[in-house]
Amino acid sequence: MQIRLSQCLPMLAAVLLLSGAIVVPAEEGMWTFDNLPVKQLEAKYGFKATQEWLDHVRLSSVRLNDGGSGSFVSADGLLLTNHHVARAQLQKNSTAEHDYIRDGFYATTEDQELKSPDLEINVLVGMKDVTERVQNATKGVTDKAQALKAQEAEIAAIEEESKKATGLRSDVISLYNGSEYWLYQYKAYTDVRLVFAPEQQAAFFGGDPDNFTYPRYDIDMALYRVYENGKPVHTENYLKWNTRGAAPGDLIFVSGNPGSTQRQDTMAQLLVERDTVEPAVIAYLQARITAAQDFAKQGPDQAREVGSTVFFLQNSLKAYQGRYEALLDKSVMQKKQDDENDLRSKVDANPDWKAAYGDAWNTIASVEEQVKPEIKHQLFRRTGSQLFTIALELVQYVAEVKKPDGERLPQYHEAGLESLRYQLFSPAPIYTDVEKMFMKTSLNLAVEQLGANDEFVQAITQGGDVSKRVDELVDGTKLTDPKVRQALIEGGEAAVAASTDPMIMAARRFDPIWRANYKHIRDSEESVLVPAEEELGKARFAVYGKNAYPDATFTLRLSYGTVDGYPYNGTIAPPFTTYYGLFDRSASFSNKAPFNLTGKEAAALDKLDLATPLDFVCTADIIGGNSGSPVIDRNGDIVGLIFDGDIESLAGDFVYDGTKNRAVAVHTAGMIEALRKIYDADALADELEGKE
Amino acid sequence: MQIRLSQCLPMLAAVLLLSGAIVVPAEEGMWTFDNLPVKQLEAKYGFKATQEWLDHVRLSSVRLNDGGSGSFVSADGLLLTNHHVARAQLQKNSTAEHDYIRDGFYATTEDQELKSPDLEINVLVGMKDVTERVQNATKGVTDKAQALKAQEAEIAAIEEESKKATGLRSDVISLYNGSEYWLYQYKAYTDVRLVFAPEQQAAFFGGDPDNFTYPRYDIDMALYRVYENGKPVHTENYLKWNTRGAAPGDLIFVSGNPGSTQRQDTMAQLLVERDTVEPAVIAYLQARITAAQDFAKQGPDQAREVGSTVFFLQNSLKAYQGRYEALLDKSVMQKKQDDENDLRSKVDANPDWKAAYGDAWNTIASVEEQVKPEIKHQLFRRTGSQLFTIALELVQYVAEVKKPDGERLPQYHEAGLESLRYQLFSPAPIYTDVEKMFMKTSLNLAVEQLGANDEFVQAITQGGDVSKRVDELVDGTKLTDPKVRQALIEGGEAAVAASTDPMIMAARRFDPIWRANYKHIRDSEESVLVPAEEELGKARFAVYGKNAYPDATFTLRLSYGTVDGYPYNGTIAPPFTTYYGLFDRSASFSNKAPFNLTGKEAAALDKLDLATPLDFVCTADIIGGNSGSPVIDRNGDIVGLIFDGDIESLAGDFVYDGTKNRAVAVHTAGMIEALRKIYDADALADELEGKE
Repeated sequence: MQIRLSQCLPMLAAVLLLSGAIVVPAEEGMWTFDNLPVKQLEAKYGFKATQEWLDHVRLSSVRLNDGGSGSFVSADGLLLTNHHVARAQLQKNSTAEHDYIRDGFYATTEDQELKSPDLEINVLVGMKDVTERVQNATKGVTDKAQALKAQEAEIAAIEEESKKATGLRSDVISLYNGSEYWLYQYKAYTDVRLVFAPEQQAAFFGGDPDNFTYPRYDIDMALYRVYENGKPVHTENYLKWNTRGAAPGDLIFVSGNPGSTQRQDTMAQLLVERDTVEPAVIAYLQARITAAQDFAKQGPDQAREVGSTVFFLQNSLKAYQGRYEALLDKSVMQKKQDDENDLRSKVDANPDWKAAYGDAWNTIASVEEQVKPEIKHQLFRRTGSQLFTIALELVQYVAEVKKPDGERLPQYHEAGLESLRYQLFSPAPIYTDVEKMFMKTSLNLAVEQLGANDEFVQAITQGGDVSKRVDELVDGTKLTDPKVRQALIEGGEAAVAASTDPMIMAARRFDPIWRANYKHIRDSEESVLVPAEEELGKARFAVYGKNAYPDATFTLRLSYGTVDGYPYNGTIAPPFTTYYGLFDRSASFSNKAPFNLTGKEAAALDKLDLATPLDFVCTADIIGGNSGSPVIDRNGDIVGLIFDGDIESLAGDFVYDGTKNRAVAVHTAGMIEALRKIYDADALADELEGKE
Repeated sequence: MQIRLSQCLPMLAAVLLLSGAIVVPAEEGMWTFDNLPVKQLEAKYGFKATQEWLDHVRLSSVRLNDGGSGSFVSADGLLLTNHHVARAQLQKNSTAEHDYIRDGFYATTEDQELKSPDLEINVLVGMKDVTERVQNATKGVTDKAQALKAQEAEIAAIEEESKKATGLRSDVISLYNGSEYWLYQYKAYTDVRLVFAPEQQAAFFGGDPDNFTYPRYDIDMALYRVYENGKPVHTENYLKWNTRGAAPGDLIFVSGNPGSTQRQDTMAQLLVERDTVEPAVIAYLQARITAAQDFAKQGPDQAREVGSTVFFLQNSLKAYQGRYEALLDKSVMQKKQDDENDLRSKVDANPDWKAAYGDAWNTIASVEEQVKPEIKHQLFRRTGSQLFTIALELVQYVAEVKKPDGERLPQYHEAGLESLRYQLFSPAPIYTDVEKMFMKTSLNLAVEQLGANDEFVQAITQGGDVSKRVDELVDGTKLTDPKVRQALIEGGEAAVAASTDPMIMAARRFDPIWRANYKHIRDSEESVLVPAEEELGKARFAVYGKNAYPDATFTLRLSYGTVDGYPYNGTIAPPFTTYYGLFDRSASFSNKAPFNLTGKEAAALDKLDLATPLDFVCTADIIGGNSGSPVIDRNGDIVGLIFDGDIESLAGDFVYDGTKNRAVAVHTAGMIEALRKIYDADALADELEGKE
């Protein structure tokens, strides 16, 4: 599925995530709303996107900060996304009595709707090019570390000004390797209530084996209702429901928030990714999965508590394995090398360009050489503990907010504090037995990979036995209570400094180590990388023009393509699947997990029109983070719901191959059929279809 | 599907086909009935094959000389095979009024059954090791060409003695690279009548795209009834029908006639195969397919006339492309190299072995170097014409039969003449417009590849325009009439020499060229290759013992394995498919060809139990020629009908990979469901299930 990958490895992503621009053939591209390939759309499809159409699509699109996308699909605030995007909230609402993940959920009246503990959603209401202002901030600053600081301070100032002036969430984002900076202003909603979710097994039929593959037979949908001031929002901008869907060959669009891509990485970066990063990440994920699966075997409560985590870890593992295979694929690497050679030779052939950009590749390569031995530290200095992460955030929060905004760590800028506090004070349960299990796994791995004397390990264990120390930390901390966290924030530096909570104390010991490492990365690596990548971005603009899209940044993008099968397994994958296929695949595996039907599906057999399209594929260029994105036809109506990519799409972090890279979506007809025939949710289906 | 490949390229096969022995892991192996891996079967499956069980299976198994396999499945001579094996006979019986391929066929009474024009089937009733006698024939003969002749003469004598003594078809076959020779005695039947065939579209649902892939949804079955003396044969040995089928994990056997494999080829041979043979064969097949498809567009008659040929050509092309990809796969070639290195180093480490076998690899490599430039001649000196092939056979027949049996070309030995005449006098129609089209295509290709002055081209065209000459030859010949052929045979050399039939005259011109080439290949290449390969075969016996199976030779073999899915497309392929899947795949492609349901299938929707297993996969090691083989359970009952392999099995010519090489079969339950619910053939289903 298309859950955003980078959320699983935020530290890594912060260092290695890049953005940039390329020259694109065919349906490739995750385009910003200000720069669509209008000529290609007109020439190939006779489609002209009016500003009205674009605004309507943008304002109907939603980012879910759990890591996915969604869209408004009714006048009364219904928000459609994937079950697997809603999964984290479902888990947080589940208890020993109510397992909403296993059993699904349907609120037949508004008062039954289920508040999400800590979900924030964003609608992109404003976009402003602030490139000049951000770049001017570094003019005349020759020291690279100072320049980076000045730039960040300017970004913080822009964000804070916007937030003050509009009340909107305001993020300055870097596009095209920092060749452009944009202020994105979001309307944020935090009262988001669950209306409907199918059983996990219906949403994720086929489980981990079928994940990231097609043909598929999944009802991977969930419906929230968005509230404001205690009332459902009534938005003008929502996508009208087209139950008929799109026919094979029809032009479609995907509006959503692709998480990250590395298509502009240089060969030097890709080689470090392949030879150093991927094997370590895969080992790390495998260790966590094994530990979590062993834990789940202890009983039904344990299985429920750790279920979502295993689910997301397995998803990440399969995605990383696919990325790794792409990097090991000689034809992929040859294409990347050819692209790099082309740009580089064109830059070198023009004396002005050569002077301005010609050194960038070597600069990046030398930084990569420097980074390589440090990657293990970045990967394995992890506690795997939510409580520890919260503790470290509290320790840093109270220190950072005292500084002028421009001098803070980026995640503590004034403009982002509201969202951060919303997360920090989440009432979602934290299971201490899960905490212990993951923390022990991660620390043991750190000892194994970095040695018991590593300063991170020492900061946590103070030389003690890992298992014993973890038990003491988790048993001793009060941070499971959100009120305790709030009191510490309110008490400020003094309260945190005085705290004898063992987890806070451990975080205090680690904070200086973390900061020293952060400073080192910033001053010696990022400060060199950022301008070098900006040079590459400018070089691409100079050589190829702006017929390009930036690497993904978990911000709103529009992709386009057609509904289309593709060559697979020696034959052709069909453009769509049907309910017949669900019953076939289940019967083919003797109804054994993960190919078992739910009781409701089996019971609906005689009611269902089995020829109804269930899932389908399209050529739109997407990546993790696009989960929950609407598939939209040329009228601006919704025809599908992105939930995954095929196995070939896992190379999409680095290259797009239109012959076989496919986005996988739930069909609007399949969703209506499920609501009406499997879930007896006619009222909801009527609301979607605009029937009174 | 598993139609035998070599039949499409007989000249090539004659030179390049090799046989040999290897050491096998897991379920690999196409075993002769005298040498089963009994220890492995007992250890892994607790199965002990009694002589009674083996005899019953062998005598229930049938070879169809159209290129496939089959089995007796009722006491009254019902013979089960694939639709695509029966296809050639269906085509020969079809007319403008009755298109049995398109519409299917069902004889509800015996008198409606449809006689096959030229089908011969064989049951292996006797097996005798004649290695010593064959090898003794060359003792003391130092000249290699003379030795080969002596060996062939001895083989002809053994065959003729056996034929005289028993009246049985008698073939001496070479196994394990000529380390063993066996006399196989067959009961031959030529009165074989069609009882049932589904529509081509039901048998071959998914067409060329789905061919050689899985999951599949094909009813690729046909039923003949075998007659003797005008009455259905009543054989004690037939396979009882097990409608329940085999469960995933169950031990199964496949008894059939794999056509050819090249698993014992040396690296030198594989490299010539990869770099010289495969690209040329693929070009040749593509040219024929293009010409035939253009021809088919001219109208429904043309489409019918050329339909089977296109079908078999496309099948060959896909198979050759798969073989070619396997040879281009570095991991496959590495495995072959490792195997060769292992054997070679063990041979070299033993002074006796080294002296006896150590030179074989270099000898073979030097022959391959010599053969390489000649391969183009072998491939492109083809007329693509049935009539020309018949003409050449007539010219050679009358000359050969005058010689002592041991001195004849192998295909004219006394023991085989009955079968040869049966083919030569076939009343099956030959379409002159098809003949012209293929002959022009082949000759134009020959001119393109070999030049207009090539002696083969000159022999046919005599310097004239290809198109004009072909029209003259085809319009002028009377060989379309089987009586004309018979008269020429009966008239002997004098009649053939006096004939002014232009096709006979062309064949007379080509015959000396053909013979010179044949003699060159025999004397300079095969006479060196055959003993060198025999050395390799003996080396394998010496090093690894006889825990090995010989390369396939279109003779009866027993494979074994389990019903089992496999990793595919990033997920798992199911052990079996169901009728649900047929309706899914059809609806997924909007019921468009080649994924359209037949009228009968669509009409049966409400009657069918859609959860009935339709096709399934098993790990048994098979190859082209196994089409129509029964899948047999440990009781000796039939549970399925082999009709294809998955896309990964196309590497099976060279290597067997048990993780993903799968044989694809129709399920016995799926066949009964089709007969009863789709074809209203309850009587036939009752006969199969032994119900009165």
